[in-house]
Amino acid sequence: MSEVKRAHNFNAGPAVLPLEVLQQAQAEMLDFNGTGMSIMEISHRSKDFEAVIQTAETNLRDLLNIPTNYKILFLQGGATLQFAMLPMNLRASGSADYVVTGVWGQSALKEAQKLGAARAAANTEKDGFTSLPTTLDADPNAAYLHFTSNETIHGVEFTSEPEAPSGVPLVCDASSDFISRPIDVSKYGLIYAGAQKNAGPSGVTIVIVREDLLERTPANLPIMLDYRKLAENQSLYNTPPSYSIYIVGLVFQWAKKLGGLAEIHKRNQEKAALVYKTIDESGGFYRGHAQTNARSLMNIPFRLPTEELETDFAKEATKQRLIGLKGHRSVGGIRASVYNALPLESAKALRDFMQEFQRTHG
Amino acid sequence: MSEVKRAHNFNAGPAVLPLEVLQQAQAEMLDFNGTGMSIMEISHRSKDFEAVIQTAETNLRDLLNIPTNYKILFLQGGATLQFAMLPMNLRASGSADYVVTGVWGQSALKEAQKLGAARAAANTEKDGFTSLPTTLDADPNAAYLHFTSNETIHGVEFTSEPEAPSGVPLVCDASSDFISRPIDVSKYGLIYAGAQKNAGPSGVTIVIVREDLLERTPANLPIMLDYRKLAENQSLYNTPPSYSIYIVGLVFQWAKKLGGLAEIHKRNQEKAALVYKTIDESGGFYRGHAQTNARSLMNIPFRLPTEELETDFAKEATKQRLIGLKGHRSVGGIRASVYNALPLESAKALRDFMQEFQRTHG
Repeated sequence: MSEVKRAHNFNAGPAVLPLEVLQQAQAEMLDFNGTGMSIMEISHRSKDFEAVIQTAETNLRDLLNIPTNYKILFLQGGATLQFAMLPMNLRASGSADYVVTGVWGQSALKEAQKLGAARAAANTEKDGFTSLPTTLDADPNAAYLHFTSNETIHGVEFTSEPEAPSGVPLVCDASSDFISRPIDVSKYGLIYAGAQKNAGPSGVTIVIVREDLLERTPANLPIMLDYRKLAENQSLYNTPPSYSIYIVGLVFQWAKKLGGLAEIHKRNQEKAALVYKTIDESGGFYRGHAQTNARSLMNIPFRLPTEELETDFAKEATKQRLIGLKGHRSVGGIRASVYNALPLESAKALRDFMQEFQRTHG
Repeated sequence: MSEVKRAHNFNAGPAVLPLEVLQQAQAEMLDFNGTGMSIMEISHRSKDFEAVIQTAETNLRDLLNIPTNYKILFLQGGATLQFAMLPMNLRASGSADYVVTGVWGQSALKEAQKLGAARAAANTEKDGFTSLPTTLDADPNAAYLHFTSNETIHGVEFTSEPEAPSGVPLVCDASSDFISRPIDVSKYGLIYAGAQKNAGPSGVTIVIVREDLLERTPANLPIMLDYRKLAENQSLYNTPPSYSIYIVGLVFQWAKKLGGLAEIHKRNQEKAALVYKTIDESGGFYRGHAQTNARSLMNIPFRLPTEELETDFAKEATKQRLIGLKGHRSVGGIRASVYNALPLESAKALRDFMQEFQRTHG
């Protein structure tokens, strides 16, 4: 279709999008659906936009098999705003519990503590955020139990949900592994995710919330921080981030066409395995950050024997159009993000590059 | 360039964008700046994106002649989130004053009252929001004096700033007439605007704030509600709404190329005059909402003799690809929004249609 030579995009987020999504957005840019206008130029109260947001919601419900007693919100402000909205809405009084397995869980806890009582039910910082907790010190009266299903910086991912005490809603920051595999939504009270990893571009944050929890929202919250009010208005209290929602909708459509989350999960396993295998077979030249049982299918941080080699690695990779491999500034090293939309060929290109780099520098 | 038959777009927001902005976005969709990636797929910490946001800021500084002691923020959540962030940050204690000339000013006051003391220094509701206040009952100790430079629903626009008591910062919700004419920014403490009228697509909110006011931000606000923290991080504390910022940057570039805000103001006056003249010469068939001295150059609400005629008017206009002319659901009638990017030809097409409609239905 296109003559553009696309990069192998290992960015941690904003991240690679499906080529066909971008191509459709490109084709429709000047004239959406025969309106003679861009989707950016039409009213959020028009029939055309209503169809976009409703179809996005329906497709997300299908993908994640979301029960009817859950609301879906398309909000703004990223996960960082959710760090504050969550306790504002769900912790009327009392304390909330946090399972901390990396920087994002730590940030979520810190924001919650600004506004009231919150504590760590587990914290794996002592082992450098390489592991998953084996036991929880959970408060049976907590307002909720929060965990981060995938830690983008440390590459630590839960393969199953931590168990919350009976009656304590489980809350998940799923920003970096959202719609990357099937999950049982009915186990959760609330799931939130910034879109800019698997679901679309930045600028929209998805919140999936069990209806009964909306009754906890206290009176007189500012409108844009009030889950209940935003849910009552189907995310259209004010002008939503239309274009981001439109792209997210195209991504959901793409994911369904591909065969849904079981198929996507299979592909993600295959791509991640290519990289982990290369690490494991490198005889210690490449060293993964996370313990084997905590390894993320989304973000693969690893180290080389020296920082100089890491710098060379990222530099030479860039020359071969393998982009975004430099590790997060807080931990250094290399990080390969291999989200849903990363083609298998890109994972293969990375494997080949890693093997070649070890051969020439090892 | 393009074969697309574009609509005459009178939408109130999201609204018409410059065709050449959309064409550039379309051309760059699969490959931004030779990266082999869409701008939606690149890191907000990359050199490529940094150039985008910094150029946007520089161009906005040029357009509005913004003094160096003002910070520019690119935030999320629309004006409605600013209704809350403003008092959270600028009204540590004490009371804030609001000049209410329409629904948006009223909403801003209401949100501020949820969080502390705020009062109306003027309110033109008694005359149906058709006028500008002639005097203010201003509190000399107010934390700030807030006004809405253009009321989108009622079509009432200030032609000069209300005068705040000495030492009271003037704060403006400029959402619907932002960058539509030159203003003297040094008169303001803070200006905010949702982008989706003159500046770009929805999903980004621009805040221009005098540096000394950032010192008022109390400790321990949630990060995404904290002007000071967001300013310290150049709007990049977390992932910003990259694509919306990119489009806003292209719009600023377009506005500069056109000759800046003096030229844009001239064009806006010309376009609005075409419509107001048609109203004034209709012998009462068309009746404008706002008093003559309060008339907006951006939004022109007017009535016809009957609601039936109004329905017919909007319907027949749509057939001729004049889009978005139905008035806001809260006030009815017709509303023509004639923002910066509306071509003169569209204003002429509306004039011709109005004259023809009166001839056949008058």
